[in-house]
Amino acid sequence: MQNITIVGAGLAGSLLSVYLAKRGYGVNIYERRPDMRKADISAGKSINLALSTRGIHALKEVGLYEEIKKISIPMYGRMIHSPDGATSLQPYGKDMSEYINSVSRGELNKKLMDLAEEFPSVKFHFNMPCTGIDLNKNIIHFNNGTKTGAEEISSDVTIATDGATSPVRMEMLKVPRFDFKQEYENYGYKELHIPPDANGHFQMETNALHIWPRGSFMLIALPNMDGSFTCTLFLAYERALGGENSFEALNNKKAVQSFFEKNFADAIRLMPGLLNDFFENPTGTLITVKCYPWCMNGKTALLGDSAHAIVPFFGQGMNAAFEDCTYLNECIDKFPGEWDKIFNAYQEMRKVNTDAIADLAQENFVEMRDLVADARFQLKKKIETLLYSKYPEVFIPKYSMVTFLRVPYSAALQRGRLQEAILQELSEGISDPAEIDLEKADKLIKERLSKFENIN
Amino acid sequence: MQNITIVGAGLAGSLLSVYLAKRGYGVNIYERRPDMRKADISAGKSINLALSTRGIHALKEVGLYEEIKKISIPMYGRMIHSPDGATSLQPYGKDMSEYINSVSRGELNKKLMDLAEEFPSVKFHFNMPCTGIDLNKNIIHFNNGTKTGAEEISSDVTIATDGATSPVRMEMLKVPRFDFKQEYENYGYKELHIPPDANGHFQMETNALHIWPRGSFMLIALPNMDGSFTCTLFLAYERALGGENSFEALNNKKAVQSFFEKNFADAIRLMPGLLNDFFENPTGTLITVKCYPWCMNGKTALLGDSAHAIVPFFGQGMNAAFEDCTYLNECIDKFPGEWDKIFNAYQEMRKVNTDAIADLAQENFVEMRDLVADARFQLKKKIETLLYSKYPEVFIPKYSMVTFLRVPYSAALQRGRLQEAILQELSEGISDPAEIDLEKADKLIKERLSKFENIN
Repeated sequence: MQNITIVGAGLAGSLLSVYLAKRGYGVNIYERRPDMRKADISAGKSINLALSTRGIHALKEVGLYEEIKKISIPMYGRMIHSPDGATSLQPYGKDMSEYINSVSRGELNKKLMDLAEEFPSVKFHFNMPCTGIDLNKNIIHFNNGTKTGAEEISSDVTIATDGATSPVRMEMLKVPRFDFKQEYENYGYKELHIPPDANGHFQMETNALHIWPRGSFMLIALPNMDGSFTCTLFLAYERALGGENSFEALNNKKAVQSFFEKNFADAIRLMPGLLNDFFENPTGTLITVKCYPWCMNGKTALLGDSAHAIVPFFGQGMNAAFEDCTYLNECIDKFPGEWDKIFNAYQEMRKVNTDAIADLAQENFVEMRDLVADARFQLKKKIETLLYSKYPEVFIPKYSMVTFLRVPYSAALQRGRLQEAILQELSEGISDPAEIDLEKADKLIKERLSKFENIN
Repeated sequence: MQNITIVGAGLAGSLLSVYLAKRGYGVNIYERRPDMRKADISAGKSINLALSTRGIHALKEVGLYEEIKKISIPMYGRMIHSPDGATSLQPYGKDMSEYINSVSRGELNKKLMDLAEEFPSVKFHFNMPCTGIDLNKNIIHFNNGTKTGAEEISSDVTIATDGATSPVRMEMLKVPRFDFKQEYENYGYKELHIPPDANGHFQMETNALHIWPRGSFMLIALPNMDGSFTCTLFLAYERALGGENSFEALNNKKAVQSFFEKNFADAIRLMPGLLNDFFENPTGTLITVKCYPWCMNGKTALLGDSAHAIVPFFGQGMNAAFEDCTYLNECIDKFPGEWDKIFNAYQEMRKVNTDAIADLAQENFVEMRDLVADARFQLKKKIETLLYSKYPEVFIPKYSMVTFLRVPYSAALQRGRLQEAILQELSEGISDPAEIDLEKADKLIKERLSKFENIN
């Protein structure tokens, strides 16, 4: 049995180690940071995670879901906060059985490490930043912090779960015919905080993802187990793009205070630490990474963000990484011990789908920050719900395909685009979903969606 | 006066050193390879260069053109070789005053180094591969080949002309908000050779760029000063794309021999070393690189392939890099000594244009390998010539704008696309350029092209 090296003990690496340990592999995980269970390594730029069906499916496959469920908070819909302070809930699913789960990145990661370490064949090595890899010899270089600094690990099989700026992928970049793209948004984000009230209770609706959509920028808030909310402000970097609504313009306390009072009056009352958080926490970047191939020499492969970092606007980054594990595991079943075939089959299955979720996530930014507050968008959402109930196996909202089902992302993207065009046509010239032309709807759906398999 | 470090003594770096020396700067150029004037470092994968107006303009600016002209061979058109051995010449320009120049990459590079070294303030350092750069401190790391290996150079201003796989750019990749894309073609290329005849004479028309367009692949040949031709075969890598016409399929001498006999019967007679060359020379890759920003901290900038590697199908790689020097020089005039402003102005001028030539070059591959042999394409070319003579300042062939003028590449791309649509409309349903509807042509040109400035 080969020994397997995982580079990176983040969410994907920790979960993957359990998959592999359960198959009997010895797994060594090397992590650049210290053990986050012993040292506080929070960088002040985390966005809470929205664990949904794909991620849950993976956790269930390895028997970890019940444990993770304990640190998850269901969110049944988007709570939209208008500028005047009014709120309205837009449900995510068709009923209360469909929801997403707020989980703290740090808590989830720690829990996965604990659960992984229950397997004697899994060993974590902390404070070991990867400094390079010889892809031909499969020797990985780490800086072990000693005087000489360098440590070489020889590995039969290496899986790099080392994130969006993956050092392993950096070496692949130098290999001829390795295609690569990294693209940053012109928007950054800032982690902010709403604490619990004096009695330790949530100060807003607990079971919702709160959004303050403001057109070209937005604030969101997700609940934590301790009664607090982790908030994230998404905002243009430069004045050239965002004008006064930009990080460049918000360069002093007075400007931040008045920006929040003007745009998030109901939220600022709940954020006593706003000014401190705003200037203490770093501004996070938003990156999309696409590359190909994901594997080399049948010995080294990328998984999760290292292969396909995406922006957070569909809440699918972690879910997509966990789904990578599901598919890789399937490929291991198919070709036991033949890692060349395993990795090739895995990348062919996944690449087209992670490209799709990358595009969907970028598109969803516009929806979240702008369209959710738009009357026309809401009308289309209502028509969508109506058509979903009438054609439950054919006309399934894009959001549901991505979030509540395990339909391949690429199929969700294609069907979603065709459905959007149908919604556009049906919503023209009306203001109430009851007014839609049902015959026309039936005709359009038959014409354009019958080529797809039914989903149920 | 700041000292300037250039990383990479290729074509762009060598020319740039002359620009800077003429302004009085001390310039140190570090080159990873040995001095090519003393050691044969040919990798067997060079494609001859087509020096044209933009490159010539830059050479003239620094007074080097007369020297380079001596090692250049004018090419007045494309010599198309049909499968049956028939040839026809498609002129590049409106008359014999418009031509491109075949130059050997190696000879040109050596000559530029010689000319640069005539300036006492220019110093070349060979066998010094760059291993990294500290972009904040502007300290560059080189491997100087000694036992300890590492040498650090402190530099006021660094310009990286270190090519498509630029080590300096590798460090920029790690900087937040650095956008980057590298994309390989599914085609590779192979350098081949047609020697002079027994009397040292050219065995084909000297003053032409020879093309054997074969739809999904092609062979080209450019003349050298010694009576030989450097040939390049462009071919799909995999059977999955090219079938039998792929490097994967051409894996033995018999297959290569019969592939050439079938497709390039007239050329193979002139290629006694074909089989040896084919299996000795490496298969070259074709890469497009786009990135942004090109400069950091007002101290380090990319120039040439390191900023914008392109495929060779428009013959503009070197010309674009030389034009970078022209523009950078203009910016130095504008902001003497203020490198932050210089680099920013330079990248803003160039980025949109090098993106455009990257796209034009990729599009031109289809034209070269396929369309030039197509009757419809030739009809459109004739209409284009006719309209050019009738509207010489408005309707200028795309090829001419790119090759014989210094119109910004982005303008050439835009105008070229609009003109192509006009040619498409005018050529429909006719088979002779004389049949075109001149009134319609006049109307279309006025409608769609009048928004542009006249070119003369």
